Amino acid sequence: MAPEPPSKPGKARQFQAPKGTRDFYPADLLRRRYVERLWRDTSVRHGFEEIDGPTFESAELYAVKSGQGILSEMFGVYSGKDEAEVAAIRQGAGPPLGLRPEFTPTLARMYAARAAQLPRPTKWFWMQNCYRAERPQRGRLREFGQWNCDVIGGEDTLAGDAETISVAMMCLAEAGLPEHTCVAKVSDRRAIGGYLRERGVGEEAMGPVLQLLDAAEKLGPAFAERAGEAGVPPDVIALFSRPGGPPATAEGGFARHFDAAVAPLVDRALRGGVPAAGLQASPRIVRGLAYYTGMVFEIIAEGERAVAGGGRYDNLIELFGGPPTPAVGFGMGDVVLSLLLEDQRLMPDERQIMECLSRTPASYRPQAFVIANEKDESHSHVDPLVASLRRGQQNAAWLDRDARKPWDPDRYAVHPMHARRSYKSTRNIGKLLQDASAQRARFAVIVESAELATIKNLDTREEHKEVPLADVGHRLAAMG
Amino acid sequence: MAPEPPSKPGKARQFQAPKGTRDFYPADLLRRRYVERLWRDTSVRHGFEEIDGPTFESAELYAVKSGQGILSEMFGVYSGKDEAEVAAIRQGAGPPLGLRPEFTPTLARMYAARAAQLPRPTKWFWMQNCYRAERPQRGRLREFGQWNCDVIGGEDTLAGDAETISVAMMCLAEAGLPEHTCVAKVSDRRAIGGYLRERGVGEEAMGPVLQLLDAAEKLGPAFAERAGEAGVPPDVIALFSRPGGPPATAEGGFARHFDAAVAPLVDRALRGGVPAAGLQASPRIVRGLAYYTGMVFEIIAEGERAVAGGGRYDNLIELFGGPPTPAVGFGMGDVVLSLLLEDQRLMPDERQIMECLSRTPASYRPQAFVIANEKDESHSHVDPLVASLRRGQQNAAWLDRDARKPWDPDRYAVHPMHARRSYKSTRNIGKLLQDASAQRARFAVIVESAELATIKNLDTREEHKEVPLADVGHRLAAMG
Repeated sequence: MAPEPPSKPGKARQFQAPKGTRDFYPADLLRRRYVERLWRDTSVRHGFEEIDGPTFESAELYAVKSGQGILSEMFGVYSGKDEAEVAAIRQGAGPPLGLRPEFTPTLARMYAARAAQLPRPTKWFWMQNCYRAERPQRGRLREFGQWNCDVIGGEDTLAGDAETISVAMMCLAEAGLPEHTCVAKVSDRRAIGGYLRERGVGEEAMGPVLQLLDAAEKLGPAFAERAGEAGVPPDVIALFSRPGGPPATAEGGFARHFDAAVAPLVDRALRGGVPAAGLQASPRIVRGLAYYTGMVFEIIAEGERAVAGGGRYDNLIELFGGPPTPAVGFGMGDVVLSLLLEDQRLMPDERQIMECLSRTPASYRPQAFVIANEKDESHSHVDPLVASLRRGQQNAAWLDRDARKPWDPDRYAVHPMHARRSYKSTRNIGKLLQDASAQRARFAVIVESAELATIKNLDTREEHKEVPLADVGHRLAAMG
Repeated sequence: MAPEPPSKPGKARQFQAPKGTRDFYPADLLRRRYVERLWRDTSVRHGFEEIDGPTFESAELYAVKSGQGILSEMFGVYSGKDEAEVAAIRQGAGPPLGLRPEFTPTLARMYAARAAQLPRPTKWFWMQNCYRAERPQRGRLREFGQWNCDVIGGEDTLAGDAETISVAMMCLAEAGLPEHTCVAKVSDRRAIGGYLRERGVGEEAMGPVLQLLDAAEKLGPAFAERAGEAGVPPDVIALFSRPGGPPATAEGGFARHFDAAVAPLVDRALRGGVPAAGLQASPRIVRGLAYYTGMVFEIIAEGERAVAGGGRYDNLIELFGGPPTPAVGFGMGDVVLSLLLEDQRLMPDERQIMECLSRTPASYRPQAFVIANEKDESHSHVDPLVASLRRGQQNAAWLDRDARKPWDPDRYAVHPMHARRSYKSTRNIGKLLQDASAQRARFAVIVESAELATIKNLDTREEHKEVPLADVGHRLAAMG
């Protein structure tokens, strides 16, 4: 429909927000800013740095990553001023530009353009709006906020996997969701693919079969039929038709593949601070997008809602012209998270949000940079200490009294901190301290044994020796 | 051009950000966040509340407000999934949706939809991106950040005009731009129109003639020719052809119109904290957009760059289906402001920005709500006191030492505060205190005379009497 000519003065027109978009009046915007504050503070404390890119990109950029399918859900963009663009569209071409349906293609483009100069790993977070021309429904809008964290490059990919799960889970804990109500269901696409390959599923069929597995619960009986057509052996179909999906362990060939991939990750994630009750190996998780190459996960809240999801995508940076680079990340949307917090009465009221937003945010300078001395036993304490500093220590009295008011300023005895560790493989303490200073850390924490640490003020060079590991948080907090 | 099918794995593609858009790597994003922090803190301290709306709106919405002209600079948006939309475009229709070239139409739509429930005045700020399909050049991009403050409704329109100028100027002062380098050039469209009408310019010609006046300097000799064709008398053409535009005073008929409109505003803005050196009546300012109905202004920095601009638009809310409502606002873009700060060496480096962003932001709860007792002499001290609390008091030692480092934590002896005043016409102190509590203020400051005030803690009801006006800021800061 062509826009009408402007109305004459005095002839009033009534307009509404386009379908699937939102007007944020001041009280609505405060809730949005509360969610963004949770996202930003959690990201910063985990050592992620914020980036952003254009709201629209070349439509080809999205096609390269996600295939033509994404284009049907994309909002096309074109300049009415550019006659060639307009003429091409009128002749049946697709739009030259698209509103971003997701940020990962932009991230991959940006990383590929500067891969050589960027740190390893590069840890980026992003929080802006995405756009999808889907039919709006509860929990799904056409314009929505999204938070991404990605770990790109670096040798220790297991650390990246674990940290990605950990930062998403820590955000939900900080939002006040009790640990047992959020479960990260973890799986591995390469393991499932390896098993299917062993059972005779060909490379050509692999993509479609993985998509069938992802949709198995939704498909119901149609799953068995379509999987059969795709050449999946009957016992494999039976395995994936079981309620809850195949058991993660003790199922012969499948378990061998699955455990080999997922067990080390679970172990690392637990060490990185994800609570045992919040972690579940779950072969039912496959994720729909074609580009995942390894670990995939979804966080299920209150037993049903997927509040976040992501995985490893080791081929994508190369596809955008960068060097071969491992990468892992997740996305969390503001619509589902806000509904969840409201349903759980965890969304503060206006005045409480105003007080939250007026408090000091997470420190952009790392407050603690944790390294180990040469001993092996020290090394294994780095991740747990980093995780505990990032988590903070809750006030025992608060837990009894106000556990459903996560915004209460008295929640923490030791406030969550911005803590980092080195990703360098060296055990040379001098080099590790240089890394800490280069990252602008205020304090280095050197784990000396299974019990003790040294705290070093990197601004003043002052040292505190023989600090019990359990007291490091308190001591750092006291030192400001 | 139709998007190509996705590349095979291994076939790398090189992509760039679309023309006129930006990639924000972490250091770039920090600078952007620094600018946004200046904008948000200044807005909050002036009692504006943040809102947001959709990134795209019905294309008609933009046409209603700004005329068809805006459509040629608009990025069209459509859903590739909606066959009717695609078919219409292919048959030559314009786009059904547009990326917002500005936020004011959305604001007018949102205000009109809830006019009856909103406070009078409603003070809203907004900061997000806008999109214009212009040719990119220095200081002008296709996607850019914008900050708007608007005062909508309320009886005292002069207060709205003055506050709009004041909040924009205070932001630039907070950014470290010395007062004499930024000048708000203030004019009034109604005054210029009244004069032209008196001189025989007809209603039909008024819009085009005002646009000619706005462009007079750019047009050069062509201005006289085109103004003559539009029926403007020769002496009026001569008046507006003078370098710098017509003199603001002592020019017979013109000055009578202009002074009557602008002098009271200048007086009120000075009382509202705009420094005399930063305010200039300037009939050359007309502003291009057709919808301005009264006061218009531009802030010129360093003698040349327009860093912000705005004005009064009293017909717009009605045009969008709301009640007749006076309104005034301005916009400031991130691209010009960032260039200005960089040129002036007022953009902090990465570490300094990290420290800025880690500090406590402006308090969302008003720290002070200033009211007057019944005496007339008290009443006239409200605006200057509010302005001085919002400005804070600079440290004398800092001024000597570090006046080009506005981010220095030692800049202020008394930090700028979130201060409000009542817009109610009542002088009943009980009702004014109710207003203060309804707005969640922490302290009420009651001006008792030209010298003294009472400070009342609205949370505890504690009172401090006979506080010298000059000490109110210090006392409030000390009471935390």
